[in-house]
Amino acid sequence: MQKLEQLYEGKAKKVFKTDDPEVLMVDYKDDATAFNGEKKGTIESKGIINNKVTNHLMKMLEKEGIPTHLIEEVSDRETLVKKVTIVPLEVIVRNVAAGSFSKRYGVEEGKELLCPSLEFSLKDDALGDPLINSYHVLALGLATQEEIDLIAKYAFKVNEILKAYLLKLGIKLIDFKLEFGKTSDGTIVLADEISPDTCRFWDVETNEKLDKDRFRRDLGHVEDAYQEIMKRLMGM
Amino acid sequence: MQKLEQLYEGKAKKVFKTDDPEVLMVDYKDDATAFNGEKKGTIESKGIINNKVTNHLMKMLEKEGIPTHLIEEVSDRETLVKKVTIVPLEVIVRNVAAGSFSKRYGVEEGKELLCPSLEFSLKDDALGDPLINSYHVLALGLATQEEIDLIAKYAFKVNEILKAYLLKLGIKLIDFKLEFGKTSDGTIVLADEISPDTCRFWDVETNEKLDKDRFRRDLGHVEDAYQEIMKRLMGM
Repeated sequence: MQKLEQLYEGKAKKVFKTDDPEVLMVDYKDDATAFNGEKKGTIESKGIINNKVTNHLMKMLEKEGIPTHLIEEVSDRETLVKKVTIVPLEVIVRNVAAGSFSKRYGVEEGKELLCPSLEFSLKDDALGDPLINSYHVLALGLATQEEIDLIAKYAFKVNEILKAYLLKLGIKLIDFKLEFGKTSDGTIVLADEISPDTCRFWDVETNEKLDKDRFRRDLGHVEDAYQEIMKRLMGM
Repeated sequence: MQKLEQLYEGKAKKVFKTDDPEVLMVDYKDDATAFNGEKKGTIESKGIINNKVTNHLMKMLEKEGIPTHLIEEVSDRETLVKKVTIVPLEVIVRNVAAGSFSKRYGVEEGKELLCPSLEFSLKDDALGDPLINSYHVLALGLATQEEIDLIAKYAFKVNEILKAYLLKLGIKLIDFKLEFGKTSDGTIVLADEISPDTCRFWDVETNEKLDKDRFRRDLGHVEDAYQEIMKRLMGM
């Protein structure tokens, strides 16, 4: 598969065309941003770790019946994925109050939720990715009821699978963000990444943060946290 | 029924105990506030109009099968209502983009939505009444799934009834806010008010605003708009 021209450069990844119109190549960068791009930096080897961790988790999810965009990892930072049209929603699942949820509702970070919660944000940097609900999504024609229901079903299932898997590795899954896309035949698949950039991972014993909050909040040992996640998940 | 001590003074209403522990008396004020209390003023006769308009609409809704807290209007500004525990959610139904919805999602004010939309805000002035979805409500234990479903069903039914009724009077129902409460036996009933303070009413022909936006946005003729609504609804 040949890597052709760059289609898009995001905050953490570049996306390239390939010689197959249905296949794209994702190239993970070490660049880190937070607070809608206001804070910028670099996390050494992040691109490699996020590429490998994402592929590892997506392979596992595929086996458990969640369709994903993953085709094949081709290098430390590069992965072939199905070309999809991204549904313009960030899909956030939460098990424990943290981050924007804690701030928005005045709930102490670390408080266990009574049940896992799901929320959508409209993917729109200029608007600050505002919270949006399923009625709004329908009212604005951003997705159909069937698509919303399927995405919600997948998101909760991903949560159950990842939560159980990570717990065995001593990691508490606090919350995470997913994105979904539609392939050319209209199938909804899990896209984007699942990594310490997009999840909150806390050590089960110490509650130590093993994710991008170390960068966001200047907690230090950012690289160590990413390395620790790769080590626990993949023994690398 | 005897009016006893004041229980609570809100932005637009005072609430008093009565000699029946299951009955409260609401007393509508002319005070107007906007932007979470940042803007303050007075709208002459607003208390009278909102009292009468609310009771007129609640009576109609009761006949159509929506249980409400209304017992009886006892004076121009005073009404007896069932004592309820307010569900801490503002329930907002929208037919047309306006106000915070337009701002939040970058949608032009006046754009017809593809279908009516429903949203909840957590009633918490200190947090700025943040948008909240039904998963959050469950995760925080603010209401049960059955209560959420019933509130959503009532809210959409109120919208259908009011939209059709108002259209005959030359009024377009853009959006509105409801609050629900639980009586001592656990029944969910429509509470609070339905008035130009809590609805956006636009003239069908001219799109002239006949609601509190005239006060919020300094559009002038605030009193005239409230009077016009009472006149169209009640011939007064």
